[in-house]
Amino acid sequence: MNQLFKNSGKAPKIKEMHITPIAISDPPLLNAAGIHAPYALRTVLELVTEDGISGISEIPGNKAIDDALASARSLVIGRDPYHLNQLQRELEAHFGTETAAQRGDAPWDQRKLVHVFSSLEVACLDIIGKLTNRPVVDLLGGKMRDRVPFAAYLFFKYEGAGGSWGNGKDPNAMGWAAARQEAAVDPKGIVDQAIAMCKHFGFQSIKLKGGAFEPRLETDCMLALHKEFGDQVPLRFDPNAIWTPETGLKYGKEMEGILEYLEDPVRGQENMANLRKQLKTPLATNMCTTSFEDIPRSIQLGSEDIILSDHHFWGGLRASMELSKLCKTFGRDLSMHSNSHLGISMAAMVHLGAALPEVPYALDTHYPWQSEEIIVGGHLPIEEGAVAVPSGPGLGVELDRDALQKLHETYLACGFTKRDDEVEMQKYHPEWKFEKVRW
Amino acid sequence: MNQLFKNSGKAPKIKEMHITPIAISDPPLLNAAGIHAPYALRTVLELVTEDGISGISEIPGNKAIDDALASARSLVIGRDPYHLNQLQRELEAHFGTETAAQRGDAPWDQRKLVHVFSSLEVACLDIIGKLTNRPVVDLLGGKMRDRVPFAAYLFFKYEGAGGSWGNGKDPNAMGWAAARQEAAVDPKGIVDQAIAMCKHFGFQSIKLKGGAFEPRLETDCMLALHKEFGDQVPLRFDPNAIWTPETGLKYGKEMEGILEYLEDPVRGQENMANLRKQLKTPLATNMCTTSFEDIPRSIQLGSEDIILSDHHFWGGLRASMELSKLCKTFGRDLSMHSNSHLGISMAAMVHLGAALPEVPYALDTHYPWQSEEIIVGGHLPIEEGAVAVPSGPGLGVELDRDALQKLHETYLACGFTKRDDEVEMQKYHPEWKFEKVRW
Repeated sequence: MNQLFKNSGKAPKIKEMHITPIAISDPPLLNAAGIHAPYALRTVLELVTEDGISGISEIPGNKAIDDALASARSLVIGRDPYHLNQLQRELEAHFGTETAAQRGDAPWDQRKLVHVFSSLEVACLDIIGKLTNRPVVDLLGGKMRDRVPFAAYLFFKYEGAGGSWGNGKDPNAMGWAAARQEAAVDPKGIVDQAIAMCKHFGFQSIKLKGGAFEPRLETDCMLALHKEFGDQVPLRFDPNAIWTPETGLKYGKEMEGILEYLEDPVRGQENMANLRKQLKTPLATNMCTTSFEDIPRSIQLGSEDIILSDHHFWGGLRASMELSKLCKTFGRDLSMHSNSHLGISMAAMVHLGAALPEVPYALDTHYPWQSEEIIVGGHLPIEEGAVAVPSGPGLGVELDRDALQKLHETYLACGFTKRDDEVEMQKYHPEWKFEKVRW
Repeated sequence: MNQLFKNSGKAPKIKEMHITPIAISDPPLLNAAGIHAPYALRTVLELVTEDGISGISEIPGNKAIDDALASARSLVIGRDPYHLNQLQRELEAHFGTETAAQRGDAPWDQRKLVHVFSSLEVACLDIIGKLTNRPVVDLLGGKMRDRVPFAAYLFFKYEGAGGSWGNGKDPNAMGWAAARQEAAVDPKGIVDQAIAMCKHFGFQSIKLKGGAFEPRLETDCMLALHKEFGDQVPLRFDPNAIWTPETGLKYGKEMEGILEYLEDPVRGQENMANLRKQLKTPLATNMCTTSFEDIPRSIQLGSEDIILSDHHFWGGLRASMELSKLCKTFGRDLSMHSNSHLGISMAAMVHLGAALPEVPYALDTHYPWQSEEIIVGGHLPIEEGAVAVPSGPGLGVELDRDALQKLHETYLACGFTKRDDEVEMQKYHPEWKFEKVRW
């Protein structure tokens, strides 16, 4: 059969795969699993085609996952970056089926396959975008909005800036850079943090990561935020699934009038479903329903209103679009979870956030807590609480190779190979132990 | 921020939109809703960009849907073909929410929005494929298989070839072209049809469209097929939801040992779910669960094992990929439904069938029943029961403009403006009436 257009050029093939673990300064932020180490780990993946087109991505850093990614090298080299379905199938065969248990009990996800595929998919989409001179959002069906809203993400924290500053502070820091280094362990500290963060970034929604202190104190912080910001600024609270059902009900009821949503108040889909029946506040999760495998029981039980997806954990940007359709089909909302991250992840999150049919809630990001960057030009700006969709081809961000090298050296020097917030907390409180359900 | 690649070329924009209804010869095939008219209607959409890149698609023909498509012209002209999410949103606003009732009771779907968006999406993907020198399958994540398997689709039929032949037959026809014109109203006729069709196309699965005659006769046809083809050739049977629950159980039980699946034995999700509990044979549907809106209740009830999707009715190829993920998430299988169609639809079906993670059942197609074609080179060949994925950019098929014009003239001459199998049946049997549930 004749064709209007002949395949003229050869198909692109991936020729190089570079896996670069990095360590970035991270302040001592508290959560139910302990405290952030002075360095957060990320891994930067770069794929390069035979024609020299580079695609990049960023995932949470973890040596076991880096090793898993490296073990997939033979499935990646020679691959056409468009051929993602087949790559996914081969990775599934390579890694085998992952179970919910492999996610782990911590607030972050530890599964290999989803991280590995996510990193490869995003880098391939970056390549495809560059090949076609299109932003990644167009590969997801195109923009629904030009700017993607994010929420202020507050943390209880000890004093210090992390990184080489450790518990110390830069005496010359000004504005948010100074506020970022302050302790926040009570309502006043949290309100001050919120004011500083919202002033600097213009956030119009606020989330507090809880699970660090007893429920009374954390609830008081939410009440103080509501008193300060009023009903105009939506508030969310996330005790990281560390509350008992009774505690979830008691404090959930107390906060019923002031919360936009309550995130993972209790552990497990059954407990979430039971609590959801008793509260008017919508429940959100990134800990009880965390994979497509978890969805059927989530639907059956009715365990949450909002799934906080994360393309790093749900298998990439296209899978996140599929999750969005699934949520819409079942009357759930979709929003976005975050870990400490830099600009490559931010760009991917923004492209996804721009393509989603609905963004009913401002997305989560740790980005304001990070002072370093690996993309040329520094941090993507957050203005009026939103990030503009990068307009360049692919992710629209360029790797700063000097910064990457420097942060890789930091990785080698710091000695961390995985996230362990419990060990870090024991440096402050030697007897401290992670508990799945504490209060 | 610097970018590795600057957006050099201007974004493509759709400049022209051509809607061409056509009428194609269709033999007098029987089904629960009556009989196929001598002409089946299809509508061919062509979108052309400012740079002269043409994208094409084909949907079931229906004047009301053609008019709906035309009414969306102002939302299409000037559109960047990548910007499908926004187009869909605007079409939803334009057409309003569609309900399950708007699908109608006939075996085919009559909703406007899904047809309109499907036609626009496929044509846009054809353009994108041509712009990027990539087959549409690559825009869906790439090929999982090079050849897509289809099933022999048998029909009870009266004598005749349809079209200008009406009830007459071409005396010079040979092989399948001759067999296609024969009557088949009993087990021998059906077995002969199956033998001729499988010999010509190499099909390795067989489906019989039932719902035309009393269950005893139709079941005997399936038993005769099993006797002829044995256990090696998977058999399916589709009474078009015209059976009562009692009939479904009785004949479902009788065919339990010989069917790969039973399609729409009864009407409605509740009846399907009840029957499913009583039969070992998997149940398939394209009549009880036909849209994303139907999915939650389908899952709750457990109304079928297999959803027979159709990109024309589920809102396009990307939505069909999303449906595939949804089915996988809930342990359902996905396969494909068909109406009378030509090569543009076939190409789209094959690209989708190649991208789907799994094709556990050979797909349905009416293609062997059609003698005409609107793509250059004639019918896409079915060999060994499968169709090779077109390798050219986009859909990989080129519009035969002379054939299109000729079939458009046939449309204008034949006087049909929508499918009405009941009226056609009344030309044979004046007292005949469509019944949603007959036996």
